[in-house]
Amino acid sequence: MRQSHLLLPTMKENPADADVISHRLMLRAGLIRQLASGLYTWLPLGLRVLRKIEAIIREELQASGAQEVLMPVVQPAELWQESGRWEKMGAEMLRMQDRHERDFCLGPTHEEVITDLFRREIQSYRQLPVNYFQIQTKFRDERRPRFGVMRAREFTMKDGYSFHTDQASFDATYQAMFDCYGRILQRMALDFRPVEADTGNIGGANSHEFHVLASSGEDTIVYASAGDYAANLEKAEAAKPGPAPAPCNNLVKVPTPGVKTITQLCDQLSISAQQTVKTLVVAGENGLTAIILRGDHELNEVKAAKLPGVVAPLQFAKDIDITQAMGAHPGFLGPVNCPIPLYVDREAAALADFCCGANEDGLHFTGVNWSRDCALEDSQIVDVRNVVEGDPAPGGAGTLKFLRGIEVGHIFQLGTTYSKAMDVSVLDQDGRNITPMMGCYGMGVTHLVAAVIEQNHDEHGIAWPVPLAPYHLHLLALNYHKSNLVKTAADKMYNAALELGIEVLLDDRDERPGVKFADADLIGLPHRIVIGERGLKNDVVEYKQRLDKAPQEVPIDQVLSLLT
Amino acid sequence: MRQSHLLLPTMKENPADADVISHRLMLRAGLIRQLASGLYTWLPLGLRVLRKIEAIIREELQASGAQEVLMPVVQPAELWQESGRWEKMGAEMLRMQDRHERDFCLGPTHEEVITDLFRREIQSYRQLPVNYFQIQTKFRDERRPRFGVMRAREFTMKDGYSFHTDQASFDATYQAMFDCYGRILQRMALDFRPVEADTGNIGGANSHEFHVLASSGEDTIVYASAGDYAANLEKAEAAKPGPAPAPCNNLVKVPTPGVKTITQLCDQLSISAQQTVKTLVVAGENGLTAIILRGDHELNEVKAAKLPGVVAPLQFAKDIDITQAMGAHPGFLGPVNCPIPLYVDREAAALADFCCGANEDGLHFTGVNWSRDCALEDSQIVDVRNVVEGDPAPGGAGTLKFLRGIEVGHIFQLGTTYSKAMDVSVLDQDGRNITPMMGCYGMGVTHLVAAVIEQNHDEHGIAWPVPLAPYHLHLLALNYHKSNLVKTAADKMYNAALELGIEVLLDDRDERPGVKFADADLIGLPHRIVIGERGLKNDVVEYKQRLDKAPQEVPIDQVLSLLT
Repeated sequence: MRQSHLLLPTMKENPADADVISHRLMLRAGLIRQLASGLYTWLPLGLRVLRKIEAIIREELQASGAQEVLMPVVQPAELWQESGRWEKMGAEMLRMQDRHERDFCLGPTHEEVITDLFRREIQSYRQLPVNYFQIQTKFRDERRPRFGVMRAREFTMKDGYSFHTDQASFDATYQAMFDCYGRILQRMALDFRPVEADTGNIGGANSHEFHVLASSGEDTIVYASAGDYAANLEKAEAAKPGPAPAPCNNLVKVPTPGVKTITQLCDQLSISAQQTVKTLVVAGENGLTAIILRGDHELNEVKAAKLPGVVAPLQFAKDIDITQAMGAHPGFLGPVNCPIPLYVDREAAALADFCCGANEDGLHFTGVNWSRDCALEDSQIVDVRNVVEGDPAPGGAGTLKFLRGIEVGHIFQLGTTYSKAMDVSVLDQDGRNITPMMGCYGMGVTHLVAAVIEQNHDEHGIAWPVPLAPYHLHLLALNYHKSNLVKTAADKMYNAALELGIEVLLDDRDERPGVKFADADLIGLPHRIVIGERGLKNDVVEYKQRLDKAPQEVPIDQVLSLLT
Repeated sequence: MRQSHLLLPTMKENPADADVISHRLMLRAGLIRQLASGLYTWLPLGLRVLRKIEAIIREELQASGAQEVLMPVVQPAELWQESGRWEKMGAEMLRMQDRHERDFCLGPTHEEVITDLFRREIQSYRQLPVNYFQIQTKFRDERRPRFGVMRAREFTMKDGYSFHTDQASFDATYQAMFDCYGRILQRMALDFRPVEADTGNIGGANSHEFHVLASSGEDTIVYASAGDYAANLEKAEAAKPGPAPAPCNNLVKVPTPGVKTITQLCDQLSISAQQTVKTLVVAGENGLTAIILRGDHELNEVKAAKLPGVVAPLQFAKDIDITQAMGAHPGFLGPVNCPIPLYVDREAAALADFCCGANEDGLHFTGVNWSRDCALEDSQIVDVRNVVEGDPAPGGAGTLKFLRGIEVGHIFQLGTTYSKAMDVSVLDQDGRNITPMMGCYGMGVTHLVAAVIEQNHDEHGIAWPVPLAPYHLHLLALNYHKSNLVKTAADKMYNAALELGIEVLLDDRDERPGVKFADADLIGLPHRIVIGERGLKNDVVEYKQRLDKAPQEVPIDQVLSLLT
């Protein structure tokens, strides 16, 4: 492709309100343009990357036995009412009425549609398992679209769905998809990690997210320094500590006027946060419930919402309700003589001689010991905190370490949630109706473009991995419009590259060399050849791979062989 | 692909409410399933056809210099308000509000979006011409979706747009797209015809439709028995007849009680419809306007709506208004002493001694002659009828013949309609702002699947042209589950075909031979090989192309060479 003909509007300056590097580079390198908040047009260069990603996904999924279908973007409300999600989905689902005032939505996902297709077409266990996927436009009306295509409203997703009558088949397909996702991301030359993930309200046994590692990632992923353990922060399990040591100190009530935070408490009493606990109050099914954490730990809201008797999704109590129930204001709460049911994080339960609020304003206890001062049942001791770096890994293999990741895939075993709600059944071997299990497998196609860039760039621009590069070779012809020598040599090499099947972009624009060099770094094709008059006099050109520090001089008749 | 694993639900019976053959066959051959009125899921077999069509379109357009982009499905109302089409589009455009109550639509077409992209990114005549296309989902909320994907609400379209600063460049790109469309349809092995088309309200100089010929087509296309002339019925020009003969008869008022139609009139007076005229009344800019046609001719509403002073789109007058204006009821109207402005079709104006209503209830005139009884200005004599088969062709090359066609493509020169409305300009050579001209080029991708089937089927099912066939070879293994001999031979040939790069579908289902034969005809792959135990004993298999009357026996080790 001749760059002079290509819609490839590069930008020198960072555009305003593009906060993450991939968003900035996608705009600057002319991959996308914003149409409206969260809506992007893909320009030719960006679309080439998108199509390469789609092709890899499609090939690997088909090789894994999945079949491609294409379901409508517009979906009738009836199916979502049947599954119970028409109400649940809230404002994120874009709804509309057709000319006959029937309700529809723009599909944020397609569980309902595929389940409806399944129940119409599949009748017998003999037809199972099945595994269908599509690559389709989705719409989610994000409250605050941002980060470019990473959090867009309209986006392209690969979504897949499998159906099974027995757990062994379910597990086998799940594993096949797990392995397939790994191959897809490997083929894209991405540094990624699959992690255990929470299955959320949907329930089900297994769930894994696939994260592309990038310091700019929004998600924290947790892995063990030894062994295979890896999970996202929501899911990561805290190892069980040993039992609490025996009490040494007496329970003493001390004045702590004006204390609002753990930091203030530690300052006033000259103790460390590890010797304190904090008390959070959330809504329970029968009134309020207290959750006790070690002072330096953070609540894991996903774990908390799953505790028996706690309302899901988690709701923090209002100060006024807390004060009424506890007899003290937040800042002075604690587990000793606690008037409401309580849960204690395992690490807090392993403390001795600790400090907590006295449930009286302006007062704390020191020297608190569980067994002596507020005996706990085993069922009250739970894992309810976020792990921190350095925690022992679950299973004992090393310690936990953190990485930043961008979620690009999520697979889970949905179980029978949708098939039950939508009254799906197939006949088993004995002619009885059974409810099939369902797995779902998502991968963000447009998200991947951004994730690839987050992981592959330097201060000058993108550095495409070869399998996803929009073109492989950038041929910079310096003074193409002034030097006949350059023009002739550049056209000849361009045609030679095309003959060899090399995907080549010829910068034949009437621009200064500096502009061409800067744009080449910005666009980030893997191979760059510079043709200039000076070199041509010695029959050499400059060759450089995108991340090489300096170019090398290569005889003009040998340079293309470096690429093939 | 093994058919036992494929989501390919065939149907023996014609489904209810599928009125056209392509719709019936697409359902029966398991290409699509309806999700809701006008919304279809593409099953694996159908999707393969769709992807092949897309690939051909993409290749040919890129080879013609067009660049692919991808614009959002969801479009902000502001752009449509700017072009003036937010109101004009009516109920066919599906509208919605996002969570912030901003107006959006599902794109029925993308002129506004591409024009907005153009004005942001293109500043100079030096960057022109440009020619962009996309293959994207569109939505048009048809009042009565029908004919399957031929008149669906959600569909895939290739839409392209070019921009120019001079007519020569505009014409060159238009011609390139015209030629490209021809190559695309040729590559699909379709019998098609490009025809001149009306440019509608949009105006502009040139417009052509591309029709796939099929007796079931909704559109009438008109061509000359000699020469190149071809147009759609709306556009087809009626040749100019000679002048009217001199009058022979006197003007006589005759009683015609109860006459409502031309047929009744001819019966009562024993004359032919060719010796009568009929009078239609439509809304004009200053009151009503009469349009006079020969009794056997039909009004061409597109031509009528373009007549000076006539309201567009055409509005027929109400009976009560007609009676008040004309002094007589419909059935008795005519041009003699006509109290409202009138237009006369050229063929009606060439009559002598004809019959028409007397503008008095129960009475007609016979022996009417224009020059004597109601002299016309030249400007009142117009081409306002539909041509009929046998009419002389415009330009005199033979006579007009009719064909039925399915419109699959439409290209037109929009001129500056959108660029003016949306205030687009580029700098010309002298640094002045000029308004670029715009062309648009549409092709119905999902429509094409139906059109291909309308043209390629017999009473047993589809007969895919090779370039679009979902698979090329259907390998029917008879009694695959009972005969080890068959299973071994079929698996071997299946693998051999895969090795040779043949797209092969192996019918390895546990079904009776009759079912396999019927499904093979229905699905319609170009080549069929039947492997049965009897033939295997003589080392032969049966080979047949889809439309062959009978199969031939071929040695098993030679049969695949017939395909390669």
